[in-house]
Amino acid sequence: MPYTIDELIKKVDDQISELEIAGDPKELYLPVEYCLKNGGKRVRPLLTLIACDMFGGSVSKAMPLAVGLEIFHNFTLMHDDIMDQAPIRRGKPAVHKKWDTNTAILSGDVMFALAYQYMLKSPEKSLKQILEVFNETVMQVCEGQQYDMNFETIDNVTEAEYLNMIRLKTAVLPASCLKIGAIVAEAPENEIQNLYLFGELFGLGFQLKDDWLDVFGDEEVFGKKTGGDIVANKKTWLYIKAFELADSKQNKKLKEAFSNQIHHPEEKINTVKNIYLQLGLNDLAVEHMEKYYKRAFDYLEKIKIPEESKSNLAYLINKLIERKS
Amino acid sequence: MPYTIDELIKKVDDQISELEIAGDPKELYLPVEYCLKNGGKRVRPLLTLIACDMFGGSVSKAMPLAVGLEIFHNFTLMHDDIMDQAPIRRGKPAVHKKWDTNTAILSGDVMFALAYQYMLKSPEKSLKQILEVFNETVMQVCEGQQYDMNFETIDNVTEAEYLNMIRLKTAVLPASCLKIGAIVAEAPENEIQNLYLFGELFGLGFQLKDDWLDVFGDEEVFGKKTGGDIVANKKTWLYIKAFELADSKQNKKLKEAFSNQIHHPEEKINTVKNIYLQLGLNDLAVEHMEKYYKRAFDYLEKIKIPEESKSNLAYLINKLIERKS
Repeated sequence: MPYTIDELIKKVDDQISELEIAGDPKELYLPVEYCLKNGGKRVRPLLTLIACDMFGGSVSKAMPLAVGLEIFHNFTLMHDDIMDQAPIRRGKPAVHKKWDTNTAILSGDVMFALAYQYMLKSPEKSLKQILEVFNETVMQVCEGQQYDMNFETIDNVTEAEYLNMIRLKTAVLPASCLKIGAIVAEAPENEIQNLYLFGELFGLGFQLKDDWLDVFGDEEVFGKKTGGDIVANKKTWLYIKAFELADSKQNKKLKEAFSNQIHHPEEKINTVKNIYLQLGLNDLAVEHMEKYYKRAFDYLEKIKIPEESKSNLAYLINKLIERKS
Repeated sequence: MPYTIDELIKKVDDQISELEIAGDPKELYLPVEYCLKNGGKRVRPLLTLIACDMFGGSVSKAMPLAVGLEIFHNFTLMHDDIMDQAPIRRGKPAVHKKWDTNTAILSGDVMFALAYQYMLKSPEKSLKQILEVFNETVMQVCEGQQYDMNFETIDNVTEAEYLNMIRLKTAVLPASCLKIGAIVAEAPENEIQNLYLFGELFGLGFQLKDDWLDVFGDEEVFGKKTGGDIVANKKTWLYIKAFELADSKQNKKLKEAFSNQIHHPEEKINTVKNIYLQLGLNDLAVEHMEKYYKRAFDYLEKIKIPEESKSNLAYLINKLIERKS
């Protein structure tokens, strides 16, 4: 029985807000609850339910896995925020700031275990397969975060290295969310693979959009100041591409800016943004994203189910593609 | 086919030293290898193999789980050492000191996932049961570590609270190692439970011995200076029992010592140790441990298998009971 997208969104929201996480010791579990219930778009669990539903699977069987995947995602945020020294998450103090680093480490660890606890609720016949997919994804996400941290001290990160990093850090998880939903629905092996590739390519486009919004977003809609990545010298696709395309004068200016010879953040952002614009990176990034989306949708098209069964997924993805924040 | 204890020890040692962990990014996996291959008694994986073997199970089927449990144990050490700011682990710099805190967080996370990867190699028919046991144990270990951290800022920790903390933090893991080995061997349900309780009670005695060695151990055999727990104001069984039994004069002296009014560490250690001796805690702790060992062995006796099948386990445990370091 196919659900509307709104029904699925409501199911996910209800399920997560009703989760009873608080237990003893409360110093361990309260931060888990705080992190998990502090909003978020719930894209990943939604992908799992949509994928299951589109292949005629039982959404209620997929629900615990959707929850486990969302818990895992939030666990990665909790640990990443320590490593990145990020004080704010979704407008509120990050766990390591609201409590302390030790709390964020240990509550993160138990959250990780909690994610597995939900993944163990897989239908018996697909338990091993689902756990293997999940576990491999977990390791890839760790690898991606490590590459991202490595890039902070490497000067000549290539576009290919960058794309591999974001593939691991951000694209494999939504891809696996889709895959796991489709496994629950016992979809054919080749269709599961098509859906996975759709998710991975879409995830790459999604991250490029993140990078783009951080520089070219409309601050009023974006909800925060743009240029954060520039100030932090973050090696985004725009950064890497800019050095690749810059002439010697632009290269010098970029280097000056990123070596913090420009002290005022606004001035640094404007300098870099102007060079990005001179190089046409605004449009180039959009073209690049669209290429990923196009390739993603090619895989979706390959999947041999009625078009209307794909409509929830297409709707959600299009909404994410068009997002302005 | 039953193995001798030396054969099982060799199997575990060989298996772990042959593990190929190093992969890309090496910044992520080298610390995992460093942590895992830096010695240790390998008690936990050995318990799994012994338990499997004593019920006539296939040791080679239990091996990946033994490895997973040892990886998990070492992961907890990596994260605990950050939280406890412990610079040294088994005579070498801890991961967060040799590298840095971020490395120890993320390499710990991937190590946790690696442990699950090995646990997934359970025999298909017991996969779900084993993962449930493992996952519950993981959460209990996190809870124990949280209670231990809580105790740092709580004055009136009771003996019962302390025992519950060490049960979670240190006793449930060896108990589960035994249980998982027995599950692989498809031992009867009640025998698995007897073995678990044996492990838990033995684990409690084992931790009391740790506390005792830290104060009353022979420094030459102990391999490090005694009194570390006293200097750190650690709420051990001895600490809690001392305050319970002290008269008002002793109580005052203990409070002075633990509130760091005695500045010289040697003097602090001597003061506290003397009160412990006045209160008879040296012998009382030994009696207490022996009570746990006795109760543990009562459960081992209940298990209806030939006595010679229990000899490896009895041998290992007796060696641990008699250990002086």
